[in-house]
Amino acid sequence: MSDERHTPLADRTPFPDDIDERLRAQLTFLVEVDQLKTVLRQSPLAAADRRENDAEHSWHLAMMVVVLAEHSDRPFDVGHTVQLVLLHDLVEIYAGDTPLYDSAAGVDQRAREVAAADELFTLLPADQAQRMRALWDEFEERRTPEARFAKAMDRLQPLLLNWMARGGTWRTPGVTADDVRARKAVIGDASASLWEAGRRLIDEGEARGWSRSAEPEA
Amino acid sequence: MSDERHTPLADRTPFPDDIDERLRAQLTFLVEVDQLKTVLRQSPLAAADRRENDAEHSWHLAMMVVVLAEHSDRPFDVGHTVQLVLLHDLVEIYAGDTPLYDSAAGVDQRAREVAAADELFTLLPADQAQRMRALWDEFEERRTPEARFAKAMDRLQPLLLNWMARGGTWRTPGVTADDVRARKAVIGDASASLWEAGRRLIDEGEARGWSRSAEPEA
Repeated sequence: MSDERHTPLADRTPFPDDIDERLRAQLTFLVEVDQLKTVLRQSPLAAADRRENDAEHSWHLAMMVVVLAEHSDRPFDVGHTVQLVLLHDLVEIYAGDTPLYDSAAGVDQRAREVAAADELFTLLPADQAQRMRALWDEFEERRTPEARFAKAMDRLQPLLLNWMARGGTWRTPGVTADDVRARKAVIGDASASLWEAGRRLIDEGEARGWSRSAEPEA
Repeated sequence: MSDERHTPLADRTPFPDDIDERLRAQLTFLVEVDQLKTVLRQSPLAAADRRENDAEHSWHLAMMVVVLAEHSDRPFDVGHTVQLVLLHDLVEIYAGDTPLYDSAAGVDQRAREVAAADELFTLLPADQAQRMRALWDEFEERRTPEARFAKAMDRLQPLLLNWMARGGTWRTPGVTADDVRARKAVIGDASASLWEAGRRLIDEGEARGWSRSAEPEA
């Protein structure tokens, strides 16, 4: 882990000094997070021939929370869950995206992301930095109904994109349909009906040859 | 206005028939809105050398609502406002983006967008289509504190990007600093302090020559 800190993007064109210090910190953070639009994911868009970025992904999850809320197995707060998904990938601005099927990159993922959270959120005034960190921790810990539903959307959304792409990242070398089922099963922690539909897409994708049915013999 | 309807994106890879009809309608809508990621705006990103798209913009507004909520002049519901900004540009999937400083395109903007809303939202089950339409109408009418704050973010966000770009769309031919001030003044309907900061950026940008001070004589 490097101790080097990133120079905030806003330093390129500093805000006028006479803007209130608290507001200036907030604007500096809001310019910094523009970088989420440049963090590329593995998932292919349904609407264009390119990969998705984290800002697009986060927006899509938020829409899914609003539209699919009725499928939650437990009562939950939609507005709070939307906030969780909006910020859940912010740490990737400094830590980068860790592909779901990349076990090697997964090893130090948590440490990289915690360091990124410490750096990024402290651009904000202290009270807001604490609140952002608490929301991110809540998402990561997956204990509240809100965090579970947010995580379910995070797993269901690329599944929809892979379905539309007739494979997408299901075709990652070494990945089988059973791997996909294993990684997506957390959808069922939030919603039996959404996990049933998700499994249906995975099963049908496997039947159509969009994912591999078993790891080839060594 | 064409009466032709768009073929839903999901028709390219139809979902299995045995997925519940209501859920299938919701998933069809959620795939359709993937197209928001392909609607380009005029604003340049702060973090990369390209224009922003509507999904990225909507995500950014939602983050701004969360971070800047304390600046509202009136008490308001953050979760509800986040929902307004998440969906405020969905109609542009069919109607296209209308640049703020393009008066000609502004003429039939409302008619194009209403037709788009009628078509897009009715992909959803009827109760949800009605609710989405009500949220979009609320945003457009700008009467509630939530809609006013949402609109303020919609005007403040590109102002931040233009500041970072040292001009950006402020340099649109024929546009003066006074035009920018006039289009951005609605920020003041939601927050005196944010409009004060916004005006400060516009004034300073004008002083630095990033926008034009007056329309040249004809």
